[in-house]
Amino acid sequence: MIAVLKSGTNDKQIDNLSSWLKAQGLDVHISKGSEHTVIGLIGDTSKVDAELIESLEIVESVKRISEPFKSANRKFHPDDSIIQVGNTSVGGNTFAIMAGPCSVESEEQVMEIAKAVKKAGATMLRGGAFKPRTSPYDFQGLKADGIEFLLEAKKETGLPIVTEIMNANHLSLFEDVDVIQVGARNMQNFELLKELGKTNKPILLKRGLANTLKELLMSAEYIMAGGNENIILCERGIRTFETYTRNTLDLSAVPMLRELTHLPVIIDPSHATGVARLVKPMALAAAACGADGLMIEVHNDPVHALCDGAQSLTPDAFADVTHSVKKVLKALSED
Amino acid sequence: MIAVLKSGTNDKQIDNLSSWLKAQGLDVHISKGSEHTVIGLIGDTSKVDAELIESLEIVESVKRISEPFKSANRKFHPDDSIIQVGNTSVGGNTFAIMAGPCSVESEEQVMEIAKAVKKAGATMLRGGAFKPRTSPYDFQGLKADGIEFLLEAKKETGLPIVTEIMNANHLSLFEDVDVIQVGARNMQNFELLKELGKTNKPILLKRGLANTLKELLMSAEYIMAGGNENIILCERGIRTFETYTRNTLDLSAVPMLRELTHLPVIIDPSHATGVARLVKPMALAAAACGADGLMIEVHNDPVHALCDGAQSLTPDAFADVTHSVKKVLKALSED
Amino acid sequence: MIAVLKSGTNDKQIDNLSSWLKAQGLDVHISKGSEHTVIGLIGDTSKVDAELIESLEIVESVKRISEPFKSANRKFHPDDSIIQVGNTSVGGNTFAIMAGPCSVESEEQVMEIAKAVKKAGATMLRGGAFKPRTSPYDFQGLKADGIEFLLEAKKETGLPIVTEIMNANHLSLFEDVDVIQVGARNMQNFELLKELGKTNKPILLKRGLANTLKELLMSAEYIMAGGNENIILCERGIRTFETYTRNTLDLSAVPMLRELTHLPVIIDPSHATGVARLVKPMALAAAACGADGLMIEVHNDPVHALCDGAQSLTPDAFADVTHSVKKVLKALSED
Amino acid sequence: MIAVLKSGTNDKQIDNLSSWLKAQGLDVHISKGSEHTVIGLIGDTSKVDAELIESLEIVESVKRISEPFKSANRKFHPDDSIIQVGNTSVGGNTFAIMAGPCSVESEEQVMEIAKAVKKAGATMLRGGAFKPRTSPYDFQGLKADGIEFLLEAKKETGLPIVTEIMNANHLSLFEDVDVIQVGARNMQNFELLKELGKTNKPILLKRGLANTLKELLMSAEYIMAGGNENIILCERGIRTFETYTRNTLDLSAVPMLRELTHLPVIIDPSHATGVARLVKPMALAAAACGADGLMIEVHNDPVHALCDGAQSLTPDAFADVTHSVKKVLKALSED
Repeated sequence: MIAVLKSGTNDKQIDNLSSWLKAQGLDVHISKGSEHTVIGLIGDTSKVDAELIESLEIVESVKRISEPFKSANRKFHPDDSIIQVGNTSVGGNTFAIMAGPCSVESEEQVMEIAKAVKKAGATMLRGGAFKPRTSPYDFQGLKADGIEFLLEAKKETGLPIVTEIMNANHLSLFEDVDVIQVGARNMQNFELLKELGKTNKPILLKRGLANTLKELLMSAEYIMAGGNENIILCERGIRTFETYTRNTLDLSAVPMLRELTHLPVIIDPSHATGVARLVKPMALAAAACGADGLMIEVHNDPVHALCDGAQSLTPDAFADVTHSVKKVLKALSED
Repeated sequence: MIAVLKSGTNDKQIDNLSSWLKAQGLDVHISKGSEHTVIGLIGDTSKVDAELIESLEIVESVKRISEPFKSANRKFHPDDSIIQVGNTSVGGNTFAIMAGPCSVESEEQVMEIAKAVKKAGATMLRGGAFKPRTSPYDFQGLKADGIEFLLEAKKETGLPIVTEIMNANHLSLFEDVDVIQVGARNMQNFELLKELGKTNKPILLKRGLANTLKELLMSAEYIMAGGNENIILCERGIRTFETYTRNTLDLSAVPMLRELTHLPVIIDPSHATGVARLVKPMALAAAACGADGLMIEVHNDPVHALCDGAQSLTPDAFADVTHSVKKVLKALSED
Repeated sequence: MIAVLKSGTNDKQIDNLSSWLKAQGLDVHISKGSEHTVIGLIGDTSKVDAELIESLEIVESVKRISEPFKSANRKFHPDDSIIQVGNTSVGGNTFAIMAGPCSVESEEQVMEIAKAVKKAGATMLRGGAFKPRTSPYDFQGLKADGIEFLLEAKKETGLPIVTEIMNANHLSLFEDVDVIQVGARNMQNFELLKELGKTNKPILLKRGLANTLKELLMSAEYIMAGGNENIILCERGIRTFETYTRNTLDLSAVPMLRELTHLPVIIDPSHATGVARLVKPMALAAAACGADGLMIEVHNDPVHALCDGAQSLTPDAFADVTHSVKKVLKALSED
Repeated sequence: MIAVLKSGTNDKQIDNLSSWLKAQGLDVHISKGSEHTVIGLIGDTSKVDAELIESLEIVESVKRISEPFKSANRKFHPDDSIIQVGNTSVGGNTFAIMAGPCSVESEEQVMEIAKAVKKAGATMLRGGAFKPRTSPYDFQGLKADGIEFLLEAKKETGLPIVTEIMNANHLSLFEDVDVIQVGARNMQNFELLKELGKTNKPILLKRGLANTLKELLMSAEYIMAGGNENIILCERGIRTFETYTRNTLDLSAVPMLRELTHLPVIIDPSHATGVARLVKPMALAAAACGADGLMIEVHNDPVHALCDGAQSLTPDAFADVTHSVKKVLKALSED
């Protein structure tokens, strides 16, 4: 970590700062330039509070050289992490395909979709039982019943299930859930992350709408610091000024995270774009740039059927996506 | 609410959609243009799931005409809400000044700052006991002890106290806290909001880093829907591309929220800018554009004193801010 | 176009507005709701100034139903436009690969790179002669000499050349240039666009750092309104809060623009990411989601060679990219 | 300037880089840490191309310590610049108020508004003759005639005039214009900036929609590098995700620019918010946080009058703004 001091800082101030830094167990290298003094901090700086140092009046800016995440850092764990999920896995050479309805609406619905997505190549079933909605007046999910229905579908199809948690107090309901999802709005709900760190369940951690990749990895670090290293990262679009798409899918996150971390990275093109017609091209792009999997919304419910389509895909359209994704993966594996 | 249908939508599809909308208790007005059909939905649309309708294949776009928030809406509650807090209040003609340390560090620290900010014109004492930190390795606050120290300072100075909650399970610790703060990262932690809706405590709801004013009001609506209407909104900077300041303070939010809602709005210039030197000018600007109050960080701790300053102000600099703020308020009240 | 009027608007105001709209040659449909009146404008609204109408005191908001771009609109031109460039083309079934140095530095440099990229599969040579730089003290390009060197390389290799214009007064220097590039910072330099509309040269129009797809198409419309319909669109990253990459590549722009316009769309992964290691994965993603081509920086200059690499690729790394891109294209063409 | 090298960089690479940097006239300080090597560059780094260095494969990141702008830098010019404009000035202790119509529409219109804004306290007359419009089909301004009408109004009222240039070829038309405005979309039209650097006219440089303060200052530097130091900076809102306001007014830019540069800074609340009702509160806020002036749209045209208002203010509403602004300025000057 490097701290650049303001011009005009006097020696006494530098000595004071330097003593205080040393008291925290760091080595300190001071190099005085013509105008600015630069202090290099050497040692385990992951526990140094950069914000605090930057807030000091004599400090112009602070720059981390080592990343502040440790457990998630590829530097200390060069091999890809492979997250075991039931009889399948995420990461390494497996390409995970999680598919299912946005919300669980009934046992029939989820059962029918589960069978359809399994047939079309899904490796896991996703479905929302607890739904984070912007408005308190919108449907909040079937909750415990929704999880029940997912478990029934799992029993029938063998597909492991992925569903979102919004409250650590609900953890007991998730005992038979295979992957617990943390939604974008809860990515920095640190209390929830800490509780999930105490479990040994695979966690699907979605990037927040306005969170940097570094913050995503720090949130993974919260879970890992508690002892649970089974984390799957998920990019699902970030908030920008563009309005034709609901969010802007940041696909560069895939190769960038690949470099920074050993954790697997999947893409959710349904939420990222909010437009069914864009799901296939973005799923292909995700596969081509090295993602470890996809999370895709598939529906069969009457409201959507009524109007012949929706943000989520029909089972047939989904089958078409998995078919093409496999072509891309195959072509590149022969690379 | 208006739904614009895609060109090429046929009569049967329009009839189906129209029947389904009517089944939800809405009146439906259909007007066919040369190219597009537009459906007007009439009735209580605050409970209509706009996202669901927009997701339908035949729908090009949906536009709300009435705002989806009701309890927070000034239209249905023209008078300013005044939130009573101990022997003082927020909203109406009172200008609230909440001041104190970023983190509670010790009883002595908080006691000393409490006395200093009271003398300098603060109407409430703020201080963090539970601290949301990006990194799990950073200081997480003194927790229950921190609240204890704040309560001691309240006893001594009479200042009501404001402190942040991160977990609804901690609510019992907040029994004697005057205002419970929901931080920016938890603005859409809907489970927490619902629990706070069951209390009758004043809630200070901070805008999320990448949340729109509409989303802020919908989060207030979550609390209000539970029965607690004692809400103070707080703008504390949004995330943009600019890097000289930590966030971008969106001061237009003050007059805009004034129009949209009857709830009071305060400004936190310390977090918004992350730069002590900008706190005074932005506090003055906030007062000038009609904010109902300020939340300002004030320190006296040795680390910061060491280097003669910090992101937070010294008690003297804070006194200078309140002095000038009062001049602006006085000049404008004579308007 | 729909204008939603504010609640409380009286009949006389509605009549006035309505007469004024009719005077502009539009049909007007008025529908009064319980709270709001909605005015539908029918006719050729591409020439209606939506901003002006939205600025009227009685108007709450304006929503375009038809897109404001006409010449670029796929609705009126369903087939893909194919832009002929020398002996090759962009759009349709050809996948264009434009490669070359960021800046033209010498005749030897550009000649050597031209040969190398041709061998590796490039269909055009790119290189900057006029360079838009944030700082006036940075290298501004070789200007006329740079174009000369590009033309020499074209003569030698047969590759059509693409280079950026910054000033319409330089147009005479571009007489033998095959594709004239408009850089991101000039996307809304309307005076330049108008002048390019008077030529018949293919124009490569790059999306601005903070411009929406609609604004990109309106800028294309400026050129097309002048009579020049030979436009290639280019997504090159937008400005967001993420800092690991220089910009955020918005790949959803590819399928979205495909729907909105008949103009071809290419991707520049070098500028979008600013990181050489991300060029290959993002180039593959671009090919997979249906882009019509790529623009890639390739270097051989001593400064970069010195340090074994750079933001731009070596010729070998570039050959590896084109090899893999072709695999993806082949796999998907068999779809 | 500091360059942090990647871990794993070998001595030969460091030597090569170091020699190359020295060849550019810089002193080089190398400090090797346990993991990373840091190179400090000492000397006049304003002419060093940081982007080029950052692009080198062995370089992890580059951090400027000194700002890359020199002429605009307050460090080398501690006193506020005062820009003389006709018989008035901008900067120092004068508070400039530029007011007038968005577009010049007729001689009568501009004459009537000029008289009204003068009476209400404006110190300059603004009005658009050349209009940058997103759509080629929108009104592009009266051009030369518009400037004529502004000059007539200047003759009549004595108010200096401010109007926008879009093309350096039009410069001869601006001979009698007092302040030449560069619009947000042309902030990085470097060719235009260079031409304006050759004149001695005061230039009003507006911040681009997605440009950082550093980029704004670098654009000022382009003009100053040509010899023209008469620059007034203008913040007019940046592009964010918020939609209630057209842009987000970044008022922190005022005190931040005050620190960074000696050039005066004014605020345009009309364009920043796009909402007439927000102009007064944001004008007051601008005055309170230390802006050197305001640019405000005032109308009297029949279209707007028809509907009783617009984004721009009526002369009466404008008079109310200047009245309150003066109260704030007076209260703070007594501070």
